[in-house]
Amino acid sequence: MSVPPTLLFVPALPPIMNDTPARRIVILTQGHTNPITAKTASCVIRYRGEEVVALLDDTQSGKTARELLGVGGDLPVVGSLEEVAAANTLLVGIAPPGGKIPPEWRPILHEAARRGMEIVSGLHDYLTADESLVATAAQYGAKLRDLRRTEERDVASGQDFAGPALRIHTVGNDCSVGKMLVSMELAQALQRKGHDARFLATGQTGIMVAGDGCPVDSVVSDFLPGAVEKLVRRYEHHEIVVIEGQGSLAHPRYSPVTLGLLHGCRPQGMILCYEVGREAYHGLEPLPLRPLAELRQAYETVAGLVQPARVIGVAMNSRRVSEDEAAEERERIGKELGLPVCDVIRDGPEPLVAAVERLQAELSR
Amino acid sequence: MSVPPTLLFVPALPPIMNDTPARRIVILTQGHTNPITAKTASCVIRYRGEEVVALLDDTQSGKTARELLGVGGDLPVVGSLEEVAAANTLLVGIAPPGGKIPPEWRPILHEAARRGMEIVSGLHDYLTADESLVATAAQYGAKLRDLRRTEERDVASGQDFAGPALRIHTVGNDCSVGKMLVSMELAQALQRKGHDARFLATGQTGIMVAGDGCPVDSVVSDFLPGAVEKLVRRYEHHEIVVIEGQGSLAHPRYSPVTLGLLHGCRPQGMILCYEVGREAYHGLEPLPLRPLAELRQAYETVAGLVQPARVIGVAMNSRRVSEDEAAEERERIGKELGLPVCDVIRDGPEPLVAAVERLQAELSR
Repeated sequence: MSVPPTLLFVPALPPIMNDTPARRIVILTQGHTNPITAKTASCVIRYRGEEVVALLDDTQSGKTARELLGVGGDLPVVGSLEEVAAANTLLVGIAPPGGKIPPEWRPILHEAARRGMEIVSGLHDYLTADESLVATAAQYGAKLRDLRRTEERDVASGQDFAGPALRIHTVGNDCSVGKMLVSMELAQALQRKGHDARFLATGQTGIMVAGDGCPVDSVVSDFLPGAVEKLVRRYEHHEIVVIEGQGSLAHPRYSPVTLGLLHGCRPQGMILCYEVGREAYHGLEPLPLRPLAELRQAYETVAGLVQPARVIGVAMNSRRVSEDEAAEERERIGKELGLPVCDVIRDGPEPLVAAVERLQAELSR
Repeated sequence: MSVPPTLLFVPALPPIMNDTPARRIVILTQGHTNPITAKTASCVIRYRGEEVVALLDDTQSGKTARELLGVGGDLPVVGSLEEVAAANTLLVGIAPPGGKIPPEWRPILHEAARRGMEIVSGLHDYLTADESLVATAAQYGAKLRDLRRTEERDVASGQDFAGPALRIHTVGNDCSVGKMLVSMELAQALQRKGHDARFLATGQTGIMVAGDGCPVDSVVSDFLPGAVEKLVRRYEHHEIVVIEGQGSLAHPRYSPVTLGLLHGCRPQGMILCYEVGREAYHGLEPLPLRPLAELRQAYETVAGLVQPARVIGVAMNSRRVSEDEAAEERERIGKELGLPVCDVIRDGPEPLVAAVERLQAELSR
């Protein structure tokens, strides 16, 4: 069937402040309300929490977001959309490998469409590709937004960026180590110090939070650096841009996404992100992760094929270890790599802010 | 409009030997009959030449393929399809950046459709996305084949390959340096020595020649290593597979394609390909190419993040220099890198065959 595409597909959630009626978001995490699979939910709660009214998961009904995700305080988990009748947006809050919508979610999506809600998804499985859902949405005036849908078709120029922005890029040894969170926290901390800094989103969650971005892993590989270049050019007039990283250069599944991003944004400085205690690739266990020192060298080598870039700091995610273990790890990695190390949540991002400022001073000399 | 997809899209040209009526191919190179832009034409002439009846380019009508492309002997260049009425296939013979169909070709494509021909294209601009062409094809019984159209949607497993095939992969310092040609020549030379070797195509031209393959640069970046893995698994029962490379790890436009291919096929041995005398990226002049020694190290470093791989030989493309200059270059690069070096056309691929056999012996110890 034919549906006006503008009605069904916009590149991102609108910014928080605008003229549309207030968003009242229910986040769908049915059967997956845990910090790993529901990282999209956690981040939306963290950075757009004032718009979220509930999580939807009938296997966890009655609990709170804090209990299950460690963020969101008393935000309730509900068992059905009926319990939150005032909600006007259903947001798909998980990021499974391959980006597929669990089949058992279809009835919930149809229910939301019948309620005339706006349904927002960042999965590879497009809402707008489901003819029956499209038909229901059209009948009840619901909107379907596929944040990961992209039609990028331009190759990169490879030319120098024209704007002054210092480009900082988060890279990692695996998926789901916190690159988006580190990028957000760093950009916000730079803003607090008076810098004109911007977070540039490159994944579904970041786009939900920032209201703009490029869903890089959905771009056809020939056009990936071109798409990233375009995103950076939209913000190159700022003082500093912090470009969210994806995957890892060493990841057997996602390395091309990581490299297209790296060569498309051509950062001057990189922040190496990892999770303390994780020894194998998330979802590919027991395949062991590579040592941080090897990754640092590999990132600098490969970035340098196009434009020199240096790892200027390390962001450790220490959520699974004690305060003492985190302190010991920070000390050990700092000594091993000779770089500032911090957990942006536990310690705050100040050591990384200082590293960015040092790089900025060095490059302006 | 709705057209049965099987009629319009098959993944590749059928193999040369089959039960369908003989192919009589006209290669469309209108306005672009030169060795660089028309490399698809050159390779199809080189490896499926017995099926080609003419080139179509009314700006060069009356000349021969040899005069314009350096291959194909007296194969004529014609100015219209009328001159080759017996032809049953029109094959798009160029590979422009971005893969767009030149607008001035549309009348020719419609003419071929009205003649009921099969039209084969490997461009990103799909024939089957042009509604008017689809309508004409349906009316006159013509077939449209988009070799680059792909719906790959599986992530890589990252697991070891089960089959015994030794995996050899051609890599390079730029696009259009001859990786496909080197891969074909090496596979054929290995076959002549009695090895059960197969060429695995990863680009439009290779797929036209081989009758199977994966158009890697059209795959959504999240699924690229997965698509390559699948291609290798179809042939892993052979003794040796030679996997055609694409782009370059150092290419500002195409590096994610290169890396997805590298991590998807996880070769044990790599052949480094380059063109003698080329100093800047093709199409991005004057952006300078990186030194071969740096590329060799970068390829080994990045491959090694997933599985160790070594550059075992160098394929130089010396088409632009004299016999003496080629000999001097071969000597110099061989000494600099400590590797066997040859031009597979000028010298024959035997030094690379020997390098593959040495690697095979080493790995079987």
